[in-house]
Amino acid sequence: MGFRAQLTTQEGIMSLKGNAIIGQSGGPTIVINASLVGAIQAAWDIDEIDRFFGAVHGMDGVLNEDLCDLFREDPDTVEAIKLVPSAGLGTCRLKPKDKDLERAMEVFKAHDIRYFFYIGGDDSQLACHRVSELAKSSDWEMRVIGIPKTIDNNLVVTDCSPGFGSAARYAATCCQAVGRDAEAFGNLEVVEIMGRNEGWLTGATSAARPTPEAPPHLVYLPEVKVTREQLIDDVKAKYDELGYCVIAVSEGFAFEGEDRVTSSSQVDEFGHSRLGGVAQWLSDVVEEGTGVRSRHDKLGNLQRCFSATASQVDLDQAYAVGQKAVYWAVEGQTDIMVTIERENDDPYQWECGATSLMTVAGASKAVPREWINETGNDVTEEFVTYCKPLLTGRACELDTGFSSFPKFRLHRIDCKLCAYERE
Amino acid sequence: MGFRAQLTTQEGIMSLKGNAIIGQSGGPTIVINASLVGAIQAAWDIDEIDRFFGAVHGMDGVLNEDLCDLFREDPDTVEAIKLVPSAGLGTCRLKPKDKDLERAMEVFKAHDIRYFFYIGGDDSQLACHRVSELAKSSDWEMRVIGIPKTIDNNLVVTDCSPGFGSAARYAATCCQAVGRDAEAFGNLEVVEIMGRNEGWLTGATSAARPTPEAPPHLVYLPEVKVTREQLIDDVKAKYDELGYCVIAVSEGFAFEGEDRVTSSSQVDEFGHSRLGGVAQWLSDVVEEGTGVRSRHDKLGNLQRCFSATASQVDLDQAYAVGQKAVYWAVEGQTDIMVTIERENDDPYQWECGATSLMTVAGASKAVPREWINETGNDVTEEFVTYCKPLLTGRACELDTGFSSFPKFRLHRIDCKLCAYERE
Repeated sequence: MGFRAQLTTQEGIMSLKGNAIIGQSGGPTIVINASLVGAIQAAWDIDEIDRFFGAVHGMDGVLNEDLCDLFREDPDTVEAIKLVPSAGLGTCRLKPKDKDLERAMEVFKAHDIRYFFYIGGDDSQLACHRVSELAKSSDWEMRVIGIPKTIDNNLVVTDCSPGFGSAARYAATCCQAVGRDAEAFGNLEVVEIMGRNEGWLTGATSAARPTPEAPPHLVYLPEVKVTREQLIDDVKAKYDELGYCVIAVSEGFAFEGEDRVTSSSQVDEFGHSRLGGVAQWLSDVVEEGTGVRSRHDKLGNLQRCFSATASQVDLDQAYAVGQKAVYWAVEGQTDIMVTIERENDDPYQWECGATSLMTVAGASKAVPREWINETGNDVTEEFVTYCKPLLTGRACELDTGFSSFPKFRLHRIDCKLCAYERE
Repeated sequence: MGFRAQLTTQEGIMSLKGNAIIGQSGGPTIVINASLVGAIQAAWDIDEIDRFFGAVHGMDGVLNEDLCDLFREDPDTVEAIKLVPSAGLGTCRLKPKDKDLERAMEVFKAHDIRYFFYIGGDDSQLACHRVSELAKSSDWEMRVIGIPKTIDNNLVVTDCSPGFGSAARYAATCCQAVGRDAEAFGNLEVVEIMGRNEGWLTGATSAARPTPEAPPHLVYLPEVKVTREQLIDDVKAKYDELGYCVIAVSEGFAFEGEDRVTSSSQVDEFGHSRLGGVAQWLSDVVEEGTGVRSRHDKLGNLQRCFSATASQVDLDQAYAVGQKAVYWAVEGQTDIMVTIERENDDPYQWECGATSLMTVAGASKAVPREWINETGNDVTEEFVTYCKPLLTGRACELDTGFSSFPKFRLHRIDCKLCAYERE
């Protein structure tokens, strides 16, 4: 029996009345606020939720009792924030220890919090699951729902992760743009894309190619390693064919049998950093190996926040998972993460599903080996079929000037507990 | 008597019939093809121009007699290429020597070329001027017109340089986007922007701020040096005020009394590059100096080719300078560069003017000292008034998928001379 079937048969769930809390966690995305807004707008009309608190800087805000009253935010501002990139409540990179979780429970009890929603990746889903377990063992009735988010697209069970499509669309747009620059000079160009262990984003830049000749011409995912010799041969062949070549690599790229390149933050006695990133290093390698001039670009943090090229499907899905989290919690669900289920590739159809937090907590999904070609320098048609629908653009009028990103006012609520010091 | 007055009084100029040639030179821009298209479309209706050749890869194409027939390009493709970033004819970074210029004259004579148009920055305008001088001294009647182009905005006489506005708009959009990311974490963020000797682009990111609190909060131009102590103090003050801070710096940034950071392409015995760029280095410096975590992004080559955030004014001006170059050449002008003349700041009004190639050749314009504030960490209201109109957006429907950039077919014409070897 599938999850949605279960949902519809869950009759007679006791109504749970109280307050709710939501937080954003980990690296932000272009659409993470759409999930938050989906949850807030869903909660507006729900009697069971008295007050809806925002945890400022995620779990940090829970522990420090730094909470704001989301129902006091102006509804027009809430609606506008749907399209604002990055975490409107602030985010954190905190992995809660046992003592932190106990503190979180104290905060939840002090503020009569019966609903906990957490927007994040696999680590955050683990935190969510542990909160859920602790609530059960401390006899505090609470519904805990994880809302998926990561540009890395590495959450398991869900067909894709909100945040991925928009990051991928930016990365693909960049590869096609720098391709024009590389072709004008007849150069090589190495583009470094986020994804330390999984190559979803890097592969997506290939899936977005409008024609087989469009850049990037070679893509290397961390899932498959190639030798120096093979990569140089690949580049030479493409350059001979096209007169230029764009090479997309994940930040986790390494040659077969070699260590990864690390971008050290240590500085030498002159204050200079010791190492560049993968793009700069690999650019030097291919220039030396081919004799053709090479340039490089690292797409960096903009993959998490450049919203002018957002994906409409991604925005819609991010909103939906936030909205469904609230609806399903009130209907009695707990200890689950909302997922995206694919109904059809073309035309693309999807709906929300769910999975237990246990199954996603701390787990990650690599690109399947069979979705990468045999030589390891491109993705296959299966990858393209999977990825393409997630990259649809957004028809909108570009802002002709520069307008401010709207922001929450973050009306703080009074603390009820003593201050907390993390160990 | 102004230039336009001169133009209208130049009666009785001998009509000059023959072929024309155009080339693109140096670093491409988001709108450099608009100048090319402006010239092609102007030439369509001009009887004096029999054939219009494109020099493939600029002066390289002239020397190698690698020419294409632009009148054979499909008119719809020409129109569409107006919006395609980077140099559609290819570009080069060649500084012609005396022998090269003599070869160029041979090519011009062999193909009955009477009009030479060159789209480029100050070095290219110098090449243009030297061609003009050589034509005069070799008794070859030819009209030579420079078309301004550079994202650096450092050409003299002209009010601004086509290419700048769109690069600035991308850089400003990036600063505002990464500002959201930095605020969500409560971090510092260093953004590295092109401009080795002039800070026009870096300053523009400040001019685009919709509110005084919007990022970037500190901007450092190469025109004014600050000490390490001052910069750290600046960052601390902004961070204390806002809880995060975005610092925009030109790639040519250096502290008072210190050498510039260079991004070396040399590799050590492990194949790793020795140095990072300015952003990475400065990010380490501010993190160490303030104790607050810092991230960094180098905007890189995308400033020359990311067209989704192009400036409409920039596109219009790029088109106009290409168009006017052709009109004015046919009307008898030579040895000039087309310029942009500002008529009014607000509402912004401009028209094309011209200046002698001599005045712009090899010269460059820094940001005036009085347009940078006294402490050297921001631009002044004068800079903002100057810059803001150049950053207007472009109202357009975003492509909902990914369509190919249209390309020229580059129909090559037959060579008439022996092959040429550069010394």
